[in-house]
Amino acid sequence: MARLAVAIGDPAGVGPEVLARALEMAAQAARPLKILLVGDAGVWAEAQRIAHVELPATPADHPGPLVRDGVPFLDLPSAERSWTLGQMSPAAGRAAAQWLERAVRLALDGLADAVVFAPLNKQAIIRAGYAVRDEYDLCASLARVEDHDEMNVIPHPAGDRAGSDLLWVARATSHVALRDVPRLLTTEGVLRAIRLAHRTAASAGAHSPRIGVAALNPHAGEGGVWGDEEGRVIEPAIAAAAAEGIAVTGPHPADHIFRRARVGDFNVVVSMYHDQAQIATKLLGFERGVSVGVGYPFVLATPSHGTAFDIVGKGIADAGPMAQALALANRLADTRTAS
Amino acid sequence: MARLAVAIGDPAGVGPEVLARALEMAAQAARPLKILLVGDAGVWAEAQRIAHVELPATPADHPGPLVRDGVPFLDLPSAERSWTLGQMSPAAGRAAAQWLERAVRLALDGLADAVVFAPLNKQAIIRAGYAVRDEYDLCASLARVEDHDEMNVIPHPAGDRAGSDLLWVARATSHVALRDVPRLLTTEGVLRAIRLAHRTAASAGAHSPRIGVAALNPHAGEGGVWGDEEGRVIEPAIAAAAAEGIAVTGPHPADHIFRRARVGDFNVVVSMYHDQAQIATKLLGFERGVSVGVGYPFVLATPSHGTAFDIVGKGIADAGPMAQALALANRLADTRTAS
Repeated sequence: MARLAVAIGDPAGVGPEVLARALEMAAQAARPLKILLVGDAGVWAEAQRIAHVELPATPADHPGPLVRDGVPFLDLPSAERSWTLGQMSPAAGRAAAQWLERAVRLALDGLADAVVFAPLNKQAIIRAGYAVRDEYDLCASLARVEDHDEMNVIPHPAGDRAGSDLLWVARATSHVALRDVPRLLTTEGVLRAIRLAHRTAASAGAHSPRIGVAALNPHAGEGGVWGDEEGRVIEPAIAAAAAEGIAVTGPHPADHIFRRARVGDFNVVVSMYHDQAQIATKLLGFERGVSVGVGYPFVLATPSHGTAFDIVGKGIADAGPMAQALALANRLADTRTAS
Repeated sequence: MARLAVAIGDPAGVGPEVLARALEMAAQAARPLKILLVGDAGVWAEAQRIAHVELPATPADHPGPLVRDGVPFLDLPSAERSWTLGQMSPAAGRAAAQWLERAVRLALDGLADAVVFAPLNKQAIIRAGYAVRDEYDLCASLARVEDHDEMNVIPHPAGDRAGSDLLWVARATSHVALRDVPRLLTTEGVLRAIRLAHRTAASAGAHSPRIGVAALNPHAGEGGVWGDEEGRVIEPAIAAAAAEGIAVTGPHPADHIFRRARVGDFNVVVSMYHDQAQIATKLLGFERGVSVGVGYPFVLATPSHGTAFDIVGKGIADAGPMAQALALANRLADTRTAS
């Protein structure tokens, strides 16, 4: 059974409170999560109060069953509790980064199969002195992973009509200049992205993922008039994936594929570059979704939304994405552990 | 007062019927449109029947006032009326193209200030033997215009909060391979796109258009790490436009700008390339919008939706976009005529 190491997030943000609410729901489940929270027990007590949840910290140093009486908790009290709820601060960023680091170490040491973190604030982490771009980059540097990326997972806009509750969006290229995208786009890379998206969506329970692959050029190249990557690079990758039994079609014009996904034609979209994926995902409900790390030696998941400083402490933040991140990490790690 | 030449669209599609409904509304207006329909009077009679509208064709050869008793109509009967309602056919495409050609000629001859067309079907036109890419290309070839493009205009998703009823989306580059975009993107070109978008939105009644300019690279280049076009090309164009008194900001990350536009932060978005604009516009309500031609020697507008063959003849097609296309063309031509 999968073991989750869960960092409680930026203590000045909504992370701890949405985690408390998400875990209260999970504690009612027939099959309990195997979990270890990593954070400050004082912050956790406050989070329970805000969330109107009673789920006390049970001291532990490795994941154990989440029960109604309490949650296994690795207490790393912050030396410097100078933050204020709802305000970005380096002190909060430093504490949050340290908890995340410990969660990642637990996974690297083989004591956890998945790392989940409640929302962090990248500015707070950077201003705390970490030389990283963001929280994913922090995980990657700890895990010594260079080639990492995220897949975004959002509630499927078509609901049941899509044959899965989730819409997955992957990228064949990611954090690079747009001018470098055509050169970096290879048949091998597109095929790898299709396979990975297929495997991940299938692991998480989409038994027959229907994958749409986006084109690179406007109107999918208009028959080769506006770029030839569709025929030269993307189609061979799709043909190879289809030959492996993957249900995949494309290349579909990028301005059409997300409309088709929205009505249920696909439950996975493989995009060719960062903004192609993100323009659509952010309009379709990014803030209700989950980001899943790709390329790490452990399962990595987090809600896509941020610390939401404007509503901290009110108990009104939506705990759905946090619950989804925990559930997805559990499903993905379960499959990985079993295989 | 602006004079509109209006082609009635593909006779097998919803064009004639939505036009009948849109004109019935316009005929009630205090200030009548000055208009000439170009089509087949038999098709128009059928369209009135389908739309439950009585607005008979009054023979004419130049635009005149639209009144409740009838609409000025240039009858060009099709020699070959072999089409079936709801089916794509070269015969219908040929008739529709001929009507559009005549409307464009009226504008080129100085007898009309704007050309509007009800939805056409590009496959029908191409299969009728026209060597054009689509209906815009047909207009452009008749007008001998080489550098043409469209702006998309949709009902503003933020409604009144946006300070204008419409959201305009323009593009600094358009029908080119993605790999050519960075090379084709110049400060002069971006500045031209900003100015044109500003002038067009202002002409149509957005008295103080708030313009957001999209970045080219992911995260707007992440401070120059992923591409330098933001600082080198786009920012100087924004600064120059701002110095001219245009309310313009950016470059904003492309995966954020449309979310901000959606909540009312902008009523004009200037995008850097085709799919950047179209992915968002198509998710935000393209089919309820209007396309406005850019680069023509006359005002050109059409509903963004197509011939909708599946619902032809039922009288259920939404006439809103057709009405919007007529109203916009009228506003734009009025301003152009006055200046």
